[in-house]
Amino acid sequence: MLSKFQNHIDTNLPFLKGKKLLLATSGGIDSMVLVNLCCQSKLDFAVAHCNFQLRGEESNEDENFVKSQAEKLQIPIFIQRFDTKAFAEQNKLSIQVVARNLRYEWFYTLLANHNFDYILTAHHLDDSLETFLINFTRGSGIEGLTGIPEQNDKIVRPLLAFSRNDIEAFAKENLITWREDSSNASDKYLRNKLRHDVIPILKELNPSLLSSFENTITHLKQTQSLAQDAANNLYQKVVSEEENHTVIDIPNLLKYRNYKAYLFEWLQPFGFADWSSVYDLIKAQSGKQVLSNTHILLKNRDSLLLFPKQNTTSDEMFWIQKGQTEVKIPLKLSFCNVSDISLQSTNVIFVDEDLLQFPLTLRRWQEGDIFQPFGMTGKKKLSKYFKDEKFSLPEKANIWLLCSDDKIVWIVGKRQDERFKITANTTKILKINYTN
Amino acid sequence: MLSKFQNHIDTNLPFLKGKKLLLATSGGIDSMVLVNLCCQSKLDFAVAHCNFQLRGEESNEDENFVKSQAEKLQIPIFIQRFDTKAFAEQNKLSIQVVARNLRYEWFYTLLANHNFDYILTAHHLDDSLETFLINFTRGSGIEGLTGIPEQNDKIVRPLLAFSRNDIEAFAKENLITWREDSSNASDKYLRNKLRHDVIPILKELNPSLLSSFENTITHLKQTQSLAQDAANNLYQKVVSEEENHTVIDIPNLLKYRNYKAYLFEWLQPFGFADWSSVYDLIKAQSGKQVLSNTHILLKNRDSLLLFPKQNTTSDEMFWIQKGQTEVKIPLKLSFCNVSDISLQSTNVIFVDEDLLQFPLTLRRWQEGDIFQPFGMTGKKKLSKYFKDEKFSLPEKANIWLLCSDDKIVWIVGKRQDERFKITANTTKILKINYTN
Repeated sequence: MLSKFQNHIDTNLPFLKGKKLLLATSGGIDSMVLVNLCCQSKLDFAVAHCNFQLRGEESNEDENFVKSQAEKLQIPIFIQRFDTKAFAEQNKLSIQVVARNLRYEWFYTLLANHNFDYILTAHHLDDSLETFLINFTRGSGIEGLTGIPEQNDKIVRPLLAFSRNDIEAFAKENLITWREDSSNASDKYLRNKLRHDVIPILKELNPSLLSSFENTITHLKQTQSLAQDAANNLYQKVVSEEENHTVIDIPNLLKYRNYKAYLFEWLQPFGFADWSSVYDLIKAQSGKQVLSNTHILLKNRDSLLLFPKQNTTSDEMFWIQKGQTEVKIPLKLSFCNVSDISLQSTNVIFVDEDLLQFPLTLRRWQEGDIFQPFGMTGKKKLSKYFKDEKFSLPEKANIWLLCSDDKIVWIVGKRQDERFKITANTTKILKINYTN
Repeated sequence: MLSKFQNHIDTNLPFLKGKKLLLATSGGIDSMVLVNLCCQSKLDFAVAHCNFQLRGEESNEDENFVKSQAEKLQIPIFIQRFDTKAFAEQNKLSIQVVARNLRYEWFYTLLANHNFDYILTAHHLDDSLETFLINFTRGSGIEGLTGIPEQNDKIVRPLLAFSRNDIEAFAKENLITWREDSSNASDKYLRNKLRHDVIPILKELNPSLLSSFENTITHLKQTQSLAQDAANNLYQKVVSEEENHTVIDIPNLLKYRNYKAYLFEWLQPFGFADWSSVYDLIKAQSGKQVLSNTHILLKNRDSLLLFPKQNTTSDEMFWIQKGQTEVKIPLKLSFCNVSDISLQSTNVIFVDEDLLQFPLTLRRWQEGDIFQPFGMTGKKKLSKYFKDEKFSLPEKANIWLLCSDDKIVWIVGKRQDERFKITANTTKILKINYTN
């Protein structure tokens, strides 16, 4: 497996070489095998272990085990204990969701603070097959049927081309020790049921199930990329972005026999669910409309008009207190006071803390919102800004605003507001970091 | 279920109303329920029962059962006995393949001879789910993951929106009797394993599995239609059809990050299987080539050239004897002498039997083939004809020629040859019918 692994890195993931890697390590067989493969391949990495303190002494033994293994292999290690239960109770969230969020939050913090380039996880092909079946069982579009991605953003999964069998064989040959996996997957019951009761039968029916599965998801990903091309292509011909709404031209759309497929692809990001009502709108009389939680789709003569709902509902409003260092929901922001401005980016801004009115709020945008774009002297309607920047429908739907006293501080991840920027008079610099 | 069924016919299959329908009836619960639903819905139908004579007395009891039920309900019935075993041995084919071919061959003959409009089969949603899982297990692109189609060509499956539970409940309520299904499915073992061991677990994990599955395949079909749009769209920009080959322009293709997905979509119909070699050809030196069973893909400077192989191999040649009334492989043709020319179509031709040299042959086309298009005085290269008619790559790959002494009689399903047409001198008219 080692040479196959190295070959896979060389051909598929060459960008990992020479980079600083952080390896998420539970102490289970998958992550311990990945640690060993990375070690033997002379990759530059450290390990990170989360102790969620959910299983008392056992959790601590996991921690000690990972620590001792890292010491033995002379690999730098980061360990973090979380009061997962308390956090879940405070935030009225499930243990699983909280554990997942805490884990990635911490990884990204390590990444930022210690200049790591990528986070590696030990997901493998069997995990990917289970994910496919879970999504299939629940009902899914193609996006749920393409397995676990080998890379998204900073997270890379170099074992995805390997099976559980490969990993077990390598562990045995190399006398690798591990702790039984303490998975915090929210779908643990489902996953075990599939792993133990369903997949073995499928493997009996086709002993090369895993490689068939690899081919299947490769082809599905290709199909998906073609479908996206088609959706973008027709979008340019049939849809126009007005300042405060989006216009779909019905006669032009109806030239395509599969117009419903296009409507689905375009409107899905806005939370529409009752598709037969959406499709019926095409032939409905002017004034008819279909609602999602956030948007209105309105029939108007020869067009469908898509508007964001005018009023932000209260459950879409989130508060940030003074001194709070992080937000996890509805998106991940971290706040810290710094003495100087370093690299600014679309995901990192610096603001004058004294100009802020706490608590800050995170909310959706609404018609009539205005802001003063960073570097400009005048104000601008947000809807105008979206139009000028050619934001797509899904981009507009996913926007969050960080506000102070309902003045926009940041169109998160997009554009900072001029009014809160650092000036010669600033005494307290607040760095705000968005992790997407 | 009756009102749901009638509603489904009204909204999704209204074209069935007032048409002559032929209902494939094994005598099993699914087909007996369909018979009853069609009866109560006052559809105009007859039943057709195949006795494959594979299970001795049991087969004959099935036949008698269907016959008595049809009599009781006063529905016209067609029964056909097949010597399936002998036929399989003669043609060196599996019993399952032969049974399937005989069955559809006979249905299509009934359709033609008795002016039925559609064949109905009793496939339901659980069958479709099983088909999905069979294809998934074997490895498949999206085409295998969209379930059983509700309609292809003349075959319509009005129970596809209903589950096995729906059908069992209806049978119970309506005191419908049936014979245990004598499925001849070639995948019977696989299907039973999935039905009894896999699907019950998936249903336990999600009690609404079937409706989730319906949504999944609806979305996958939509995605597939978008992908086809994209493939056709780029084909027009990047691919050109020359007289004897097809040219893919590489620099233009490489403008698309997902060019591999396009190559896959275009070249898959030609039987290419080693995709990494196909993809590597893009950057290979001129003269490199990749072969499929029927085609050559050649790198030439800035292009990929696709040629049909020059020589038709002997196992692609099929013989038709004088007096033979049907061909089932490699495609379905029927031959009968008629006294007059009736409706001619792309799928039905009439020829002067005395002009034919038996045995006729069915073969693939090759470079250099010429014919005399019906209605024209001159000859034409087949490759020129394909180009003029803008045949796509898959269409060209699927062409069969019916030949007499190696003169083309018919580009099957496309264009008849002038030389064998009926004239004032014709004494024996042969009607040839192609069923696709």
